[in-house]
Amino acid sequence: MLEEMLKNVREKSPLIHNITNYVTVNDCANVVLACGASPIMADDQEEVAEITSICTGLNINIGTLNSRTIESMLIAGKKANELHHPVVLDPVGVGASTLRTQTALKLLDEIQFSVIRGNISEIKTLALGSGTTKGVDANIADKVTKENIKEVVRFAQEFSRKTGAIIAITGAIDLVCNKEKAFAIENGHAMMSSITGTGCQLSALTASFISANPAHLLEATLAAVCTMGLAGEMAHTRLTRLDGNASYRNYIIDAIYNMTPQQLQEGAKYQEVLF
Amino acid sequence: MLEEMLKNVREKSPLIHNITNYVTVNDCANVVLACGASPIMADDQEEVAEITSICTGLNINIGTLNSRTIESMLIAGKKANELHHPVVLDPVGVGASTLRTQTALKLLDEIQFSVIRGNISEIKTLALGSGTTKGVDANIADKVTKENIKEVVRFAQEFSRKTGAIIAITGAIDLVCNKEKAFAIENGHAMMSSITGTGCQLSALTASFISANPAHLLEATLAAVCTMGLAGEMAHTRLTRLDGNASYRNYIIDAIYNMTPQQLQEGAKYQEVLF
Amino acid sequence: MLEEMLKNVREKSPLIHNITNYVTVNDCANVVLACGASPIMADDQEEVAEITSICTGLNINIGTLNSRTIESMLIAGKKANELHHPVVLDPVGVGASTLRTQTALKLLDEIQFSVIRGNISEIKTLALGSGTTKGVDANIADKVTKENIKEVVRFAQEFSRKTGAIIAITGAIDLVCNKEKAFAIENGHAMMSSITGTGCQLSALTASFISANPAHLLEATLAAVCTMGLAGEMAHTRLTRLDGNASYRNYIIDAIYNMTPQQLQEGAKYQEVLF
Repeated sequence: MLEEMLKNVREKSPLIHNITNYVTVNDCANVVLACGASPIMADDQEEVAEITSICTGLNINIGTLNSRTIESMLIAGKKANELHHPVVLDPVGVGASTLRTQTALKLLDEIQFSVIRGNISEIKTLALGSGTTKGVDANIADKVTKENIKEVVRFAQEFSRKTGAIIAITGAIDLVCNKEKAFAIENGHAMMSSITGTGCQLSALTASFISANPAHLLEATLAAVCTMGLAGEMAHTRLTRLDGNASYRNYIIDAIYNMTPQQLQEGAKYQEVLF
Repeated sequence: MLEEMLKNVREKSPLIHNITNYVTVNDCANVVLACGASPIMADDQEEVAEITSICTGLNINIGTLNSRTIESMLIAGKKANELHHPVVLDPVGVGASTLRTQTALKLLDEIQFSVIRGNISEIKTLALGSGTTKGVDANIADKVTKENIKEVVRFAQEFSRKTGAIIAITGAIDLVCNKEKAFAIENGHAMMSSITGTGCQLSALTASFISANPAHLLEATLAAVCTMGLAGEMAHTRLTRLDGNASYRNYIIDAIYNMTPQQLQEGAKYQEVLF
Repeated sequence: MLEEMLKNVREKSPLIHNITNYVTVNDCANVVLACGASPIMADDQEEVAEITSICTGLNINIGTLNSRTIESMLIAGKKANELHHPVVLDPVGVGASTLRTQTALKLLDEIQFSVIRGNISEIKTLALGSGTTKGVDANIADKVTKENIKEVVRFAQEFSRKTGAIIAITGAIDLVCNKEKAFAIENGHAMMSSITGTGCQLSALTASFISANPAHLLEATLAAVCTMGLAGEMAHTRLTRLDGNASYRNYIIDAIYNMTPQQLQEGAKYQEVLF
């Protein structure tokens, strides 16, 4: 199944509109290219609706948001919804400032997202802030473990039910779920957190995968998460004694570029979470 | 001839003012350094005239334009014209939005460019939008081939006549021409299109070359295009089985850094297009 | 001593707020991670005070300043002062435009900096512009040499006295001083100047080191300068015949990632400047 997801990205080469932060934007563009899609970065209010219209999918990342780009995110998101384009939200650092929290909640309010991807703290902040967790125990820990995974899945599925979006929570164990189905993924390497922007890159990758597989959003998101994690593993085996986080960054993107659908299929370590 | 062009960049180390996009700006700065010139990036309206004044050349790239930076481009371009500094235009994505098209046309209207560099679609959009192609068959294909090259050259030379700028059209076959003379270049590698920003990098490189060779703008542009393509070839021979687009990006800049004038002279694959 | 400084960065992993330019921001983030600290980049006026409040230190870099971000720098700097967080100023290109000079002087006026890091020209411009050098011979050369080093130290110490900040002047020979003590550092490699942003990276590194060692600001700054220079040396030994400035950039960050406190202690080449 994952095999097909990656094949479709390579074959269809969807054009992805990214409104993203200036810290990791170059890596995001190169990751989109590495998986076989094409990136466009544009964030001016005057052009985002038109740019989104010529694209297949939209990726919104609030990493270095400002008043100018927040407005652009809203315009682009609404246009994408109107055109039924898949839209990803990466709520970078939500909870770290009122501006981030309010912006993320406003985006949730006004835009229908296909996928929301963040770490557990970001997703918790969003879910609590948006008041969607009533009746759900949101006092889950800030780390997903084998012990608390079912609890986190229940929480994420409740959030998925309220938002209509697939929820992707990434960390040592990654979770991908919609309201009905949930997968736990164990690909990846701890050293990925020593590179800036692996999360941003995954969001851009996810936008590429779901845009090429619009009828299989859950599987496409799962495939994107496995691709990123597997690339992190493959890149890690390549590190020499002198390599550090900068070379690792390059090797991960390289690994995505070289990954075959078969490698993804064989290397993906995921399983459905069953209750 | 090309030998001299690169030698002059290394000897004079011209300071290049870049108003460019935030996606590929770091690569542009490192490419300018790799060829022997020095970069300054500055885009605030309050300072661009002064910054341009202390530089030797200006590179304007509309990749992530916004209302603030568009104004800065106009101010800097006019100041550069006043000081007779060479100016490059990279009309990234022109045609993808009204804002891009109108901005590029306004820039063309108000600034005298020394070189306009883009892919064939961008140059066509510009030429048609600026109404300069009357009487010229602009229904050329979106790809330059051995079959249609003379047609594309006629079109580009007409655009050069109207704008007074050297036109550089890059793709599988690159074209560099002024109204009188045209060169076709066959350096480069298809994999370069899997890296974000090789076009932006070439524009920054072109600004460096023409600034160091103000009396030989056509040859300097040709040298920049050959340098970029040859670097793409040399870097490609260096790729291992595990390398992908991220390592390739680094290797291309490395190859420019290490390229000797003699290597450029010997590796450049260009010929004049004669009618 | 330097050993401890690096150990503390790794153990405490301070969160560093960076308001910096979009050219080298990704490298700054990866360098902060490489040394063991954590970066946040945020520059909107609405959130910088809150972001600075959750961080341990602040790094202000005026490389691509604009009216929006200048205001953010002032807000964040004042908040950091209020909270007694260490603050670094990197006055990139001060003197190249009135906007840069006036902004840097305004920042100096309104914010108490812990460390000001720049090249000799930048520091001279700042010192002269701020009128702090009265009675001091500021006609020092634009290069620090073994011959003029005492003269430069006297000048830098006078500036330190006026600003209350540690002054770090980097070049072939680096200087780090407060009003009482001065160190000359001979780590580094000339090729570092062929990479964009090694100065910016050092400022981000300095913010990381002083935030983890608040009781030893001078030693922490010295340690950061030695770390950057030593990484430049170690990375240089790793270069192959085909590597250029792009690979060198990666290798330097890699070297910081892999540097042990003991390596720093043994590789640091500094001595106190005594009168």
